[in-house]
Amino acid sequence: MLPTPPPGPLDGLTVLDLSRVLAGPFCTMLLADLGATVIKVEHPDGGDEARAFLPFIGGQSAYFAAVNRGKQSIALDLGRAEDRAIFERLLARADVLVENFRPGVMDRLGYGGTTLLARWPRLVVASISGFGQHGPYRERGAYDLIVQAMSGLISLTGHPGQPPVRAGTSFGDLAASVFAANGIQAALLRRVRTGRGGLVDVAMFDCQVALLENAIARYQASGEVPQALGARHSGTAPFDAFHAADGWLVITAGGDALFQRLAAVLDRPAWCDDPRFAGRAQRVEHQAALKALIEERLATAPVSHWLAMLQAAGVPAGPIQDIAAVMADPQLAHRGLLAPVDGLALHAAHTPIRFDEQAWPTTLPAAPALDQHRADVLRLIEGDPER
Amino acid sequence: MLPTPPPGPLDGLTVLDLSRVLAGPFCTMLLADLGATVIKVEHPDGGDEARAFLPFIGGQSAYFAAVNRGKQSIALDLGRAEDRAIFERLLARADVLVENFRPGVMDRLGYGGTTLLARWPRLVVASISGFGQHGPYRERGAYDLIVQAMSGLISLTGHPGQPPVRAGTSFGDLAASVFAANGIQAALLRRVRTGRGGLVDVAMFDCQVALLENAIARYQASGEVPQALGARHSGTAPFDAFHAADGWLVITAGGDALFQRLAAVLDRPAWCDDPRFAGRAQRVEHQAALKALIEERLATAPVSHWLAMLQAAGVPAGPIQDIAAVMADPQLAHRGLLAPVDGLALHAAHTPIRFDEQAWPTTLPAAPALDQHRADVLRLIEGDPER
Repeated sequence: MLPTPPPGPLDGLTVLDLSRVLAGPFCTMLLADLGATVIKVEHPDGGDEARAFLPFIGGQSAYFAAVNRGKQSIALDLGRAEDRAIFERLLARADVLVENFRPGVMDRLGYGGTTLLARWPRLVVASISGFGQHGPYRERGAYDLIVQAMSGLISLTGHPGQPPVRAGTSFGDLAASVFAANGIQAALLRRVRTGRGGLVDVAMFDCQVALLENAIARYQASGEVPQALGARHSGTAPFDAFHAADGWLVITAGGDALFQRLAAVLDRPAWCDDPRFAGRAQRVEHQAALKALIEERLATAPVSHWLAMLQAAGVPAGPIQDIAAVMADPQLAHRGLLAPVDGLALHAAHTPIRFDEQAWPTTLPAAPALDQHRADVLRLIEGDPER
Repeated sequence: MLPTPPPGPLDGLTVLDLSRVLAGPFCTMLLADLGATVIKVEHPDGGDEARAFLPFIGGQSAYFAAVNRGKQSIALDLGRAEDRAIFERLLARADVLVENFRPGVMDRLGYGGTTLLARWPRLVVASISGFGQHGPYRERGAYDLIVQAMSGLISLTGHPGQPPVRAGTSFGDLAASVFAANGIQAALLRRVRTGRGGLVDVAMFDCQVALLENAIARYQASGEVPQALGARHSGTAPFDAFHAADGWLVITAGGDALFQRLAAVLDRPAWCDDPRFAGRAQRVEHQAALKALIEERLATAPVSHWLAMLQAAGVPAGPIQDIAAVMADPQLAHRGLLAPVDGLALHAAHTPIRFDEQAWPTTLPAAPALDQHRADVLRLIEGDPER
């Protein structure tokens, strides 16, 4: 038998989760992975709409199963008085409420943030939305693609002159999820000091702009609008994808010492004496010429040959892996990152936060059926006064 | 005079920061933005190498200034006994230590995680690395591009048949930063309960794989290796970039109700009766035909016309903004997201976590010069016993 893992760091905290689809549920997934008890409060009419998202595995949405593992579910209709009474007794018990309705919906339900805090001052209320709780765009719906487009990310991604490219995962949603979990935990740490909860307001749009790295600074320094750069980086070279005899690999050797090692691996030590490549700034300026020279050498052998040589010489480099290669990656296997979900023929990514060199649980818990935990959740508030 | 903002939620916490360049410093930036006191401990020989990163504004690296705002700096050489003594008195005072050396470096300095916790059991020690503290790749260097390549992200980004595309910001680094801040705060919350700190081990590679959304599930459900999809989404349609008379816009109308509204805006209600477009799954299957029909209509008017029409009808849509447009965006202005850095002709993105409907500070503090806060930091440990 496997040893029982120790309780997670957020053991004992209760999170009520009104959120649907991705940005909210991924945030509460993170909190559940860290040990919090997360109770999904879903509408009786079908619940979280992600329950219907393709693809299905074993009769369940794989998408829903991965993002909602380890949560509990109770179906409540917040338009009905008796369900509202249950919900309010849960609020009296909870540490955190997470929602990702459009701004205004919680107010119309009678559960706006200020109202909630007036009644339950220790509660942390986190709202995740497309554009935030205030401002001219607050009522607009946002989906990942809209956030990637409006934030500037799409303008920085792809090859010049090609049709627009979306970064191939939903960073617009997921960045907001991970920032919101930080805001929630910060508010909980403040509560330890002050005894009071508070409101956390996170917008997908803000989060994506906050992750633009140096593009905003480059624009201000040069006055030139930053462009898409393929696989390159604006500030260092060589730092790109390169074609070898049988395919692509990536090499990042922008510092002088790494560049010297790269030149040695490619048997071209004279590059280090070429004034075009004398320093990082020169190499950025002449990156196209340098790339052509590097690819001329790489064309003489396959990717596997060069990766072995580069790794032996300590030059950072790597293969461009597809999802099949990712699932077979030995480092991820060692870390236990991709774990089977209980009861399903599905592996999903575990939380990437590791504590205390402990062995990580080797499976992920199942996601709940709609209303599966009604009895458990009601037991939680049994005997509590209705406040 | 502007009102002084209230103390941040992490007010009173002290973070020692040995980290350099991006993944570590962006994590401690987040903690500083939340109110923690962050002390950069830098090598006297130049300090954090990002101090030299282009572009420069007002004689400073804009990159360094943005990521290190509001931190303090002390220069210490951890190879010298007297500097080690100062560092250890700081460790006795600190709540958190953050480092992003390659695994093994802290051990060689005599400050491996287990050693630190044996001496200072309340300390939270966070290590951010390319591949994690354990496993076959632990000693390898990783830069953002390598993580994007090995994690599968590049395989999912771009147009089929084109050379590789990197998502145009350093998600490989930044995802690890934001996850690590979550791990640190979770460990601090656990410490409230248990009195003990702990180790947090976050790998850039793990974090990127944890953000692949549904690609891993899709691969397992279908056996087909997910491919790059341009600006499309795998599971919903229409959800793409579309060309209008004078340029591109994005539209996300994958649900049936939104699709009906889109068809009405485009004056093509008959699409709703077309069996190819009868439901989300059908629209995904026939997305190419649907895209051609949508673009035929969009070609009759400019982007601004369609955005106004779509917004009036409640169909989520948006422009593809470049960085100049982002800096002029009225919603970001309302949120105060892009704020001037004190003393520099530079605006940088504020933290996207908003608390309690409070007005946000309207400027960002400056980044420290190397060793700027030596006297303040030494005052902090004055009279403390050397433990």
